[in-house]
Amino acid sequence: MKFNDLINQTSEWLKGTGAESDIVISSRIRLARNINGLKFVDWSDPETKERVMKISKQAIFSDNYMKDSLYVDMASLSLLNSQFLIERHLISREHAVNTKYKTVFIGNREIVSIMVNEEDHLRLQVIQSGLVLNDAWKIMTSIENSLEKKLKFAYSDEWGYLTACPTNTGTGLRASVMMHLPAIVITSQINNLINDLSKLGLTVRGFFGEGTAAAGNFFQISNQVTMGRGEEEIIDNLTRIIRQIVSQERGSRRFLKVRKKDIIEDKISRACATLEAAHIITSSETIDLLSLVRLGIGLGVVKKLDIHKLNELLMLIQPAHLQKQACVELSSSERDIKRAELIREKLK
Amino acid sequence: MKFNDLINQTSEWLKGTGAESDIVISSRIRLARNINGLKFVDWSDPETKERVMKISKQAIFSDNYMKDSLYVDMASLSLLNSQFLIERHLISREHAVNTKYKTVFIGNREIVSIMVNEEDHLRLQVIQSGLVLNDAWKIMTSIENSLEKKLKFAYSDEWGYLTACPTNTGTGLRASVMMHLPAIVITSQINNLINDLSKLGLTVRGFFGEGTAAAGNFFQISNQVTMGRGEEEIIDNLTRIIRQIVSQERGSRRFLKVRKKDIIEDKISRACATLEAAHIITSSETIDLLSLVRLGIGLGVVKKLDIHKLNELLMLIQPAHLQKQACVELSSSERDIKRAELIREKLK
Repeated sequence: MKFNDLINQTSEWLKGTGAESDIVISSRIRLARNINGLKFVDWSDPETKERVMKISKQAIFSDNYMKDSLYVDMASLSLLNSQFLIERHLISREHAVNTKYKTVFIGNREIVSIMVNEEDHLRLQVIQSGLVLNDAWKIMTSIENSLEKKLKFAYSDEWGYLTACPTNTGTGLRASVMMHLPAIVITSQINNLINDLSKLGLTVRGFFGEGTAAAGNFFQISNQVTMGRGEEEIIDNLTRIIRQIVSQERGSRRFLKVRKKDIIEDKISRACATLEAAHIITSSETIDLLSLVRLGIGLGVVKKLDIHKLNELLMLIQPAHLQKQACVELSSSERDIKRAELIREKLK
Repeated sequence: MKFNDLINQTSEWLKGTGAESDIVISSRIRLARNINGLKFVDWSDPETKERVMKISKQAIFSDNYMKDSLYVDMASLSLLNSQFLIERHLISREHAVNTKYKTVFIGNREIVSIMVNEEDHLRLQVIQSGLVLNDAWKIMTSIENSLEKKLKFAYSDEWGYLTACPTNTGTGLRASVMMHLPAIVITSQINNLINDLSKLGLTVRGFFGEGTAAAGNFFQISNQVTMGRGEEEIIDNLTRIIRQIVSQERGSRRFLKVRKKDIIEDKISRACATLEAAHIITSSETIDLLSLVRLGIGLGVVKKLDIHKLNELLMLIQPAHLQKQACVELSSSERDIKRAELIREKLK
């Protein structure tokens, strides 16, 4: 696969196929690993970084799952292409700055990606559609085991896997789930839920991870603690809590459908109409409106779109995606016009 | 004509027929008159008020223009029906409270209405579509002359016609024009315009007169001074100024159409779509959206409605009109649903 083919495919995690995918957009497992005996990235030198690049490349291409992956040297990418990878959740924002010695490997259907020389030598990610943390974990362990045959990871019997930031030390595991919780938000339960989750050692973030607001009622929920617990325990615990939130969202949707029918149908109908009518629209407004349309699909009120098409649209209206599709760089106000065009076309 | 037939007709002033009617909704002339030798209403007694009712009824029904007019005893009206007359601009808000001894005569096509025992013994109104103050004044003088043959009006050589409130003394004339000025508002010129008009001795109010906000960019502009100037002078002066405002609004519309095409078409397109999609809508939101659609008709962007139908809709979505059409009293939230239904039907 070539880099420019990515724009023509839908990331597997947006396909709306896994369990509870009307509410759980995606499940993501991330593992932080460092190679034993080589300095952590931030304390490192060019030679060591190059060595990390080289030996991880060999190891990754030896893995059966990753042998056909797309290899990207971050330093060779335009700003637009970096932004494009961020939007697809294939790299972190941090990986797109000071790009020298940074690479990323993108596996088939974008389920697996591996960043090299980000904060840690290796950042492995598995991301899939729906509530499928266990499936994602299976893929992750298989790849990790295979890499471990080639690379010796920094590990301490006392602390577990060693990482650049102590908050990752232990398992190096972050399990997270992107949820769409419009009914919990509309019924004003979201603040309580976020407080409860934080007491359970979970973190809640927006659509694009750390430091981004929860645009369109999309929330990313992840474990905070990485030490003192086994990987399966972390994943099972998160899955159990996510199931409870799914059930709360379903209850709230039923409440809206039965008790607030007029109000909610009004909101959804207006959102569809505005998306179809707009000639200029920002991504933030679009995400808020698409969120209502997505709720409408869930409630059976909107028939012209399915969850897959809607998820896809959430990605296609992002700034870099718009520009990649248009094959030209666009100013912010040009994008707002192009975005409206794209939406009108997709909703026709 | 019967009272309940009013709901099935469009007031002449909403028909969009007169000069400049894309910008000037209506022209209105009001004359305050009191009957010589009878106490002003606020200082009066029941017997005098009854006498005013009786002799003005005789005089009005003797007039050729008003001989077939609808006679309404305000005390016999339900609150809903009073509100209905206020919405149609046939009576003032004040005329709908303490209704004993108050009456109103409504002429053919609602062009003329005469309130009895409002603030003054007689309040005569002529209201017509477009910028036609001179035509309205002709009708007014004809009726006034005819009434003056039967009733001697309170008049002082020094002060002119005497009225309950000194601000009306002199001519007793208020000439006003309802304008739709969306382009002047969107291009942020409205505050300057209002300041300028006030320096010229003109008052600017909202859609429903004194104390109402300028919802939907509809402005009612009227003379402040009633003394020391002849009636024709007041009317010609106002007409001249209104023509200048019309020209300013036209210039601003051209500017929007040429220089802000995308932005304005986006606003108008969204307004149409929201009106067609809403299931719940307040009258205030409706008026703001209809204002944009009205601008769209003026700019040639909206084709599915004409000015007549749009003006009519501005009236039909008012609370009392909605209830009269539904033949049932409706709560505020029931009206918001009924209003959305009506709009969807009218825009189909």
